[in-house]
Amino acid sequence: MRILLVGAGGVGAAFAAIAARRDFFETIVVSDYDLVRAEKAAAQDGRYVAAQIDASSAEAVAALCREHRITHVMNAVDPVFNMAVFGGALEAGADYLDMAMSLSRPHPTAPYERCGVKLGDEQFAVAADWESAGRLALVGIGVEPGLSDVFARYAADHLFSEIDELGTRDGANLVVTDDDGNEIFAPSFSMWTTIEECLNPPVIWQDGDWHTTPPFSEPEVFDFPEGIGPVECVNVEHEEVLLMPRWVDCKRATFKYGLGDEFINILKVLHTLGLDSTEKVRVKGVEVSPRDVVAAVLPDPATVGPRMTGKTCAGLWVTGRGKDGAERSTYLYHVVDNEWTMREYGHQCVVWQTAINPVVALELLSRGTWSGAGVLGPEAFDAVPFLDLLTEYGSPWGIQER
Amino acid sequence: MRILLVGAGGVGAAFAAIAARRDFFETIVVSDYDLVRAEKAAAQDGRYVAAQIDASSAEAVAALCREHRITHVMNAVDPVFNMAVFGGALEAGADYLDMAMSLSRPHPTAPYERCGVKLGDEQFAVAADWESAGRLALVGIGVEPGLSDVFARYAADHLFSEIDELGTRDGANLVVTDDDGNEIFAPSFSMWTTIEECLNPPVIWQDGDWHTTPPFSEPEVFDFPEGIGPVECVNVEHEEVLLMPRWVDCKRATFKYGLGDEFINILKVLHTLGLDSTEKVRVKGVEVSPRDVVAAVLPDPATVGPRMTGKTCAGLWVTGRGKDGAERSTYLYHVVDNEWTMREYGHQCVVWQTAINPVVALELLSRGTWSGAGVLGPEAFDAVPFLDLLTEYGSPWGIQER
Repeated sequence: MRILLVGAGGVGAAFAAIAARRDFFETIVVSDYDLVRAEKAAAQDGRYVAAQIDASSAEAVAALCREHRITHVMNAVDPVFNMAVFGGALEAGADYLDMAMSLSRPHPTAPYERCGVKLGDEQFAVAADWESAGRLALVGIGVEPGLSDVFARYAADHLFSEIDELGTRDGANLVVTDDDGNEIFAPSFSMWTTIEECLNPPVIWQDGDWHTTPPFSEPEVFDFPEGIGPVECVNVEHEEVLLMPRWVDCKRATFKYGLGDEFINILKVLHTLGLDSTEKVRVKGVEVSPRDVVAAVLPDPATVGPRMTGKTCAGLWVTGRGKDGAERSTYLYHVVDNEWTMREYGHQCVVWQTAINPVVALELLSRGTWSGAGVLGPEAFDAVPFLDLLTEYGSPWGIQER
Repeated sequence: MRILLVGAGGVGAAFAAIAARRDFFETIVVSDYDLVRAEKAAAQDGRYVAAQIDASSAEAVAALCREHRITHVMNAVDPVFNMAVFGGALEAGADYLDMAMSLSRPHPTAPYERCGVKLGDEQFAVAADWESAGRLALVGIGVEPGLSDVFARYAADHLFSEIDELGTRDGANLVVTDDDGNEIFAPSFSMWTTIEECLNPPVIWQDGDWHTTPPFSEPEVFDFPEGIGPVECVNVEHEEVLLMPRWVDCKRATFKYGLGDEFINILKVLHTLGLDSTEKVRVKGVEVSPRDVVAAVLPDPATVGPRMTGKTCAGLWVTGRGKDGAERSTYLYHVVDNEWTMREYGHQCVVWQTAINPVVALELLSRGTWSGAGVLGPEAFDAVPFLDLLTEYGSPWGIQER
């Protein structure tokens, strides 16, 4: 297996560090628009090389694949570049993995009721091309989407006879402090992307179809395990809702993000003022996008790890009837402690938790345990070997009856 | 009386329009850094001329005074330029009026307990120069500070034998709508200045000395008259607290601004994110100050008048013992309806309410009803002729026992 990693940001760098402990691959070409960043992430062992890439060009992706005889393209750049990386991989005859799907566009007249272009629509539209080429695009194989979708498959196969709701629930108790030990506001994930996903109309699968709601809808306090405790969660547009119902029977699929009161309030204020806008405004002789300014004043999420404490939890709350026909409510989850990931890998827990899942998936693909062709979500594969290998990596998952 | 108006922004333009209906002056030179803006505000009658000025230069202010044989300089620019305009007036032998005082600087080690440099300190420091020159600097003669200080004088002379608290309370029920009639967030006053005054440590006069508190301290719901109703008010740094105790005996002086829950929340979020900062940050190749970006994304307060409805109230809540020795609690206030100011003057109510007071003061000075030398606040003068003339202008004040 010869892997092209596209993107050496927070998640890409963690991916390189996690894979370095495994022996299933021959080489990883770490590529980034910024060669210095690629070189830094590639500083693992003799199997790694660095390269410069323009991820907005399918031709550039295909050319780099051919140059290094790539078998698998691992997409770890902003999803705005998804279609170029995805297309470049197919063009070069490589398999493909990503952790976020092609972008949505709101419905032009009823954005908070009906779907426009959905997450992943552009990728699924060319699924036949991948099938006929005998190539696999494994989409949404980070932690969420990714591990949450594996949980959905596991619940359907081993725990439930009938599923009412597949409810992804994501929460954390992470705190970032400044040099004086005072708590500061510092998102553990890209603020630009967080604004994007939280202010897009959330999508819900209900009784055989998708629909949307206004942002921050259906607030719910979810009690997360392993000491994280109760966190306010709201509907957010996320890939799981688009992926799970394609392979797993369920009446309803939702994604609720444990943003917490403070973060929800901040996002609402940014939206009220128009500071979430990506359209440039003129300010004293220069032009800037307000959202870029918001991202620029906040600490870089890639650098907050050493000043962060707490745990992050990704999981799936499944309700329905168990194999015995009785009502069942089960939370399948994966908790990661930032102190542990910083000590073991030197990467903060949120990017680390995202990055471990595609490493596990690639190892299963290299063994032939997982195989397929077309555009497939993680639900399309057997969950058990994935969950077993995740545990073998030293990062076990949990299960909680509710 | 020959007046130099420095600044033809929202308040300056309203000043020019209000004065145009009076006959107490010979000429008004309307000056601004932007000559076109000055010309627009000067388009009243034959007594007005427009000029370009650099308000950051005392020499430029003095030169323009000499050129036009100015007797009174009316400062209507951002208080950051106060010392230049103030110094230029004295240099040219003119009297001076402003509506905000020289800026404060927080205490270096205990900003939320002790005062550093206070509002007006730099102006009061040179009071002897004004006295010996026989010239008057009438500072803080807008609506707040200004009319509120006149109310303090009136309360001490005519209503109270002993004053516990002089509590300025400012609130409004103004709503701005977009073209579709939906309510939007659009401050009726400069967002840059609002951030400045609301995030500076609020100052309080208590038992013979000034001290500071953290921003947004001592929240209180104050019920404003004439249909405005209850509004959440918090301590804000404001000139009244520095002016009133110099001329009026009181145990305590406060300023609480009826920002309302939403606005307070917005200011807190801006501060949490660092978007209130005036220090430039680098954003994709350009440098901008985050606070300038916040101001740039919001509607210009000078343009929201036609889309605004509601009333604004400025007033002083006085508690203590009345002339009969019995406990008394009285609110002296001035309410202005935006619909009325737009129809009568074409200026929105908040800038109009600020601008009318220095016109009234100048008319009293031209008559010789008010006179003096040195650096004096509105409390240093008899309140009755001011309040009578304000009523004669068609904008009466009110009094409410509580």
